[in-house]
Amino acid sequence: MSGSDQGRVLLSVTGFNPKRWYELLSARRTVVLEPEGARDPSIRYAVVWKQKPNVLASLPNLKAIFSIGAGVDHLFADPGLPDVPIVRVVAENLTQYMTEYVVWRVLDHHRQGALYRTQQVRRVWHEPPQAPADEVSVGIMGLGHLGRAAGPALLALGYRVNGWTRTERPMDGVHCWHGRDSLPAFLAATDILVVLLPLTPETRGIIDHKLLSRLRRDNAIGGAVLINAGRGKLQRDADILRALDDGTLMEASLDVFEEEPLPEASPLWAHPKLFITPHAAATSDPVHLVPPMLEQMAAFERGEPLTNVVDRRAGY
Amino acid sequence: MSGSDQGRVLLSVTGFNPKRWYELLSARRTVVLEPEGARDPSIRYAVVWKQKPNVLASLPNLKAIFSIGAGVDHLFADPGLPDVPIVRVVAENLTQYMTEYVVWRVLDHHRQGALYRTQQVRRVWHEPPQAPADEVSVGIMGLGHLGRAAGPALLALGYRVNGWTRTERPMDGVHCWHGRDSLPAFLAATDILVVLLPLTPETRGIIDHKLLSRLRRDNAIGGAVLINAGRGKLQRDADILRALDDGTLMEASLDVFEEEPLPEASPLWAHPKLFITPHAAATSDPVHLVPPMLEQMAAFERGEPLTNVVDRRAGY
Repeated sequence: MSGSDQGRVLLSVTGFNPKRWYELLSARRTVVLEPEGARDPSIRYAVVWKQKPNVLASLPNLKAIFSIGAGVDHLFADPGLPDVPIVRVVAENLTQYMTEYVVWRVLDHHRQGALYRTQQVRRVWHEPPQAPADEVSVGIMGLGHLGRAAGPALLALGYRVNGWTRTERPMDGVHCWHGRDSLPAFLAATDILVVLLPLTPETRGIIDHKLLSRLRRDNAIGGAVLINAGRGKLQRDADILRALDDGTLMEASLDVFEEEPLPEASPLWAHPKLFITPHAAATSDPVHLVPPMLEQMAAFERGEPLTNVVDRRAGY
Repeated sequence: MSGSDQGRVLLSVTGFNPKRWYELLSARRTVVLEPEGARDPSIRYAVVWKQKPNVLASLPNLKAIFSIGAGVDHLFADPGLPDVPIVRVVAENLTQYMTEYVVWRVLDHHRQGALYRTQQVRRVWHEPPQAPADEVSVGIMGLGHLGRAAGPALLALGYRVNGWTRTERPMDGVHCWHGRDSLPAFLAATDILVVLLPLTPETRGIIDHKLLSRLRRDNAIGGAVLINAGRGKLQRDADILRALDDGTLMEASLDVFEEEPLPEASPLWAHPKLFITPHAAATSDPVHLVPPMLEQMAAFERGEPLTNVVDRRAGY
């Protein structure tokens, strides 16, 4: 198939400069940068991040939408979202970054990084009691691509690993629960909660004070810990603050927030028990993410099925 | 064999309260706590940490010495050290703690923990460039029990792993060098240096400014990093301080120091690029370490050979 026969690509993003994405996609496809391309019948694919509403609806021959980033909730905010397959980015690279982040934050809480940093400032030489990893239970909410990669990495370090999913998804070496009814049992067996859920109407605001209060606090590390690397709107920022203040949580690491960037006035910034990263757990690097997108487009044109297609009813 | 026929155990430690060790050893053996026990012919084993000089020399029927802690250099400071086998503590538990520490510190440097903590204090929402693990080389000096456990854990997270040993010790997936002559090549290929060497006359003071200056600084993480979880006297504290100040090192994590406890007046405490733990990387927990000691004594009395015996000529 010659280049001119191939479907064109519309690139439509807000919130960052799409220059690198444009360059890398252009290596194999003709790319049209929104606001160009409205109603263009030669456009067959859209690569998007928080696209402007109704842009995609105008394209008569759109075959598939590719989302930049693992989450796809931003797409559903568009009332004119066409009924074509939505492909989620699944790149080894993004998964590796997330696994690094999860293991890093679990270790920093378990190995008492904050305490040692405080002791250092005060020039205190003191070794506190230290639980080994095999006395610590890490519970992962959400066992999609990211959760399924983080699980084995934690198991390899000796942690006990629990998993919770909406529908049943067993996993080797992981004690799994599924469904809303089993959430209390999962939480009661979990010392460090790692949130890697998709954002859907069902999961919005799920990480609230009541949920956090069900975590096991009488444990080997002396309290409960929250790590959210999923989506900010899964959590209630105010509830997390309250949970840190009243001892429901011992410590937390948050990569995501209800409003991003986190407003400068937010009291979260200054909380001594909270570690903040700016939605940086897993970088969406176009160098690693564009090649699998181009490969999917080529496979589709050879008549092969798209992979990692979003389930619209589930919302992820 | 009845309890009265079994060899008695001398427990001789300085620097901490041996109560828990005494209790746990007493469950299976008659234990004599130094200063009792001098010249006692019924004592066949000594369990020691920095024992007082010449205490062991007085025991006429001593068969073996068991060292508390992975390092044995403290034993050789005793001019009256008898010529009997010295058994090093090798416990899964201690190895697991050390692996946790190494992975934790590598991740905290690689994932820019210090930068994010500074940004949080300043309420800055900024995502810096982030290298993936497979662009970062971690070099382990010393591939004994601890190094051989840390290597696979780092490989599992995607890091490139180098190893350096005195004599040849190949290891799957690890690019290995050995001998003094190859040290510059090992260091030039290493971004994050993890020191897990034994302390011997040959390795004393080996981590000096000249060695650190050979690390790769023009790399994916923007500088060279030192992590010493071996022995304090492997390093020159003043050289590390200078290396942090002149940019030879970007950051460092130290669990050990030339003098321990680290003196309150040491300038190391206040260095912003340095993370300090109080020789706490791998806790010597008697609950986990006494059972393998008792098992070795029983095996020895059944006529089986001792394992993990120190090579006196090598000094470890």
